[in-house]
Amino acid sequence: MSPTTLNEVAAVLRPARRILMICHIAPDGDAIGSLLGLGWLLRGLPLRADGSGAQAGERTLALVCDDGVPAPFGFLPGAGDVLTAPPPGPWDVVVSLDASDPARLGRAFRPREYGQAPLVVIDHHVTNVQFGTLNWVDTRAAATAQVLVDLAGALDAAIDRAAATCLLTGLVTDTRGFRTSNTTLDVMTTATRLMQAGADLAGITERALNYKPYSLIRLWGPALGRVRLQQHVIWTSITQDMRAAINAPDNGDSGLVSFLMDAPEANVAAVFNEKPDGKVEVGFRSKPGYDVSALALSLGGGGHPQASGCTIASPLADAEARVLPMLFAAAARNVKREA
Amino acid sequence: MSPTTLNEVAAVLRPARRILMICHIAPDGDAIGSLLGLGWLLRGLPLRADGSGAQAGERTLALVCDDGVPAPFGFLPGAGDVLTAPPPGPWDVVVSLDASDPARLGRAFRPREYGQAPLVVIDHHVTNVQFGTLNWVDTRAAATAQVLVDLAGALDAAIDRAAATCLLTGLVTDTRGFRTSNTTLDVMTTATRLMQAGADLAGITERALNYKPYSLIRLWGPALGRVRLQQHVIWTSITQDMRAAINAPDNGDSGLVSFLMDAPEANVAAVFNEKPDGKVEVGFRSKPGYDVSALALSLGGGGHPQASGCTIASPLADAEARVLPMLFAAAARNVKREA
Repeated sequence: MSPTTLNEVAAVLRPARRILMICHIAPDGDAIGSLLGLGWLLRGLPLRADGSGAQAGERTLALVCDDGVPAPFGFLPGAGDVLTAPPPGPWDVVVSLDASDPARLGRAFRPREYGQAPLVVIDHHVTNVQFGTLNWVDTRAAATAQVLVDLAGALDAAIDRAAATCLLTGLVTDTRGFRTSNTTLDVMTTATRLMQAGADLAGITERALNYKPYSLIRLWGPALGRVRLQQHVIWTSITQDMRAAINAPDNGDSGLVSFLMDAPEANVAAVFNEKPDGKVEVGFRSKPGYDVSALALSLGGGGHPQASGCTIASPLADAEARVLPMLFAAAARNVKREA
Repeated sequence: MSPTTLNEVAAVLRPARRILMICHIAPDGDAIGSLLGLGWLLRGLPLRADGSGAQAGERTLALVCDDGVPAPFGFLPGAGDVLTAPPPGPWDVVVSLDASDPARLGRAFRPREYGQAPLVVIDHHVTNVQFGTLNWVDTRAAATAQVLVDLAGALDAAIDRAAATCLLTGLVTDTRGFRTSNTTLDVMTTATRLMQAGADLAGITERALNYKPYSLIRLWGPALGRVRLQQHVIWTSITQDMRAAINAPDNGDSGLVSFLMDAPEANVAAVFNEKPDGKVEVGFRSKPGYDVSALALSLGGGGHPQASGCTIASPLADAEARVLPMLFAAAARNVKREA
């Protein structure tokens, strides 16, 4: 089978009347931004009867995220229309956005209901398992939202202010505000183009990226009180007891692991988050040249060389004991220098 | 006196053979980046004898910052050449960079030594007191580095990789990585142009913006342990005792006040930093629509509507008691809504 091209993806989407779009669970700004952004692109694209060039009715779009839209992304145009479960089909096409494998789509992924509808996978994760009928996985892109800007070109779809706002949100959050090493000239040019289309960069950054509720800021006090640095690994943990003591919510840490990665002494960072069910969600980051995608994958998670995560079904102390040696190994191995 | 034009600044700089450049004390990335960046622009600019068009020797440049170059900016090309005091004159021209008033230049500012040399003030602060012979203060620019990119055009000076690296550092740090409300399309276009000239955005962000030594990360534990939120003001303080308890350095907090401003519940943020001499350095931030430049100015400091600071010569508790009512007032007054 020859690899999918962007034009093939466009050719499948353009004539489709009933489109189901799904993004991954525990959605970040790129998941929600890409879901809503593709929605706006398709809403703005005339649906034409084959060959005739005449208008031929409206598209029916369903935008689904199993976990709904997190508070920081509630400001995005169309956020109120996102469903937590797919409505009844049938569908002409199903689109998976920003998800590297079907499990990442959660309960929203119901392939037995799709019949003959092709599954189009659009993503930028290097760990993508290519589970679609068509797979457009551009690992050079910094965000799925950036892939969708290319797709808009292939679709000849106009990028209006709503689409631009959603897509720039994906670009800004996945690059942590143009900070990651995959923030290329293409990313900057794309961001500038989306600003020209009406997206408000400062407003997006303020709401989607900088959003740190007071309760979580307070949680960082005890979390940073127990931070450790050893063998170029910086890490800490957050327990349910710590959350209870200051009335912080059950989950979320507003990007503590990215913050830890700012330590010049560390090559690898990790935060161990005890969940209400006793499992431990672990977030990993690495400096350019180091890789945390392989260890996350081996622990049943996924992600990028510089940012990944997994969930471990054991108590916090056991999870730390299991993962720390892997982190020390990752922090000792400069992939670039070896290459 | 008619206002200075950028071409007048260029006309004064172009023929000058001996140039003294000074940036402000407690230098940030824009101060150091602009100082070094202008140095590289002038080094790359042929010095011609009037009218003849022939080469006419080398420029003598002195780059001075009273406080030297802070560690996070040590990677910038030419950082090792920055002096902490001006060498003996005479000078053809003296340039002040990113400083809103002469006091901000510290002991490096010695006007009695300048003789007939014009003082060229290049800045972007709205609080600039226009203390130069020529003043080019572009308050629409997000950074003095952005002003210098315009100046490069007026000088017809090439922006090489070294200049681009220094200038992009100024742009990235003063916009906190393209996060501030003055991050316009112009800023993005300028940043893209500097990347095209060879500046490594991710490397710059990594080293100049994200730099948070482990000792300061640890300091955030107790600092966030005492964070308060009241009347839309979020604030905390750092004492010398807290620093001593975890062996943190005497000063610096790696941008704690910017972090606090991310709380969606707050309009204004402040961090009170007790200095080794017992004085209290206070950093202020505000959300767009709120103004902390006026209160900083009234306390003997300065800055922008969204970011300012001052030093108070009284014990921590007294400083807090004096400043907090001003903060509550600033957080209650939406300047935009009134305008």
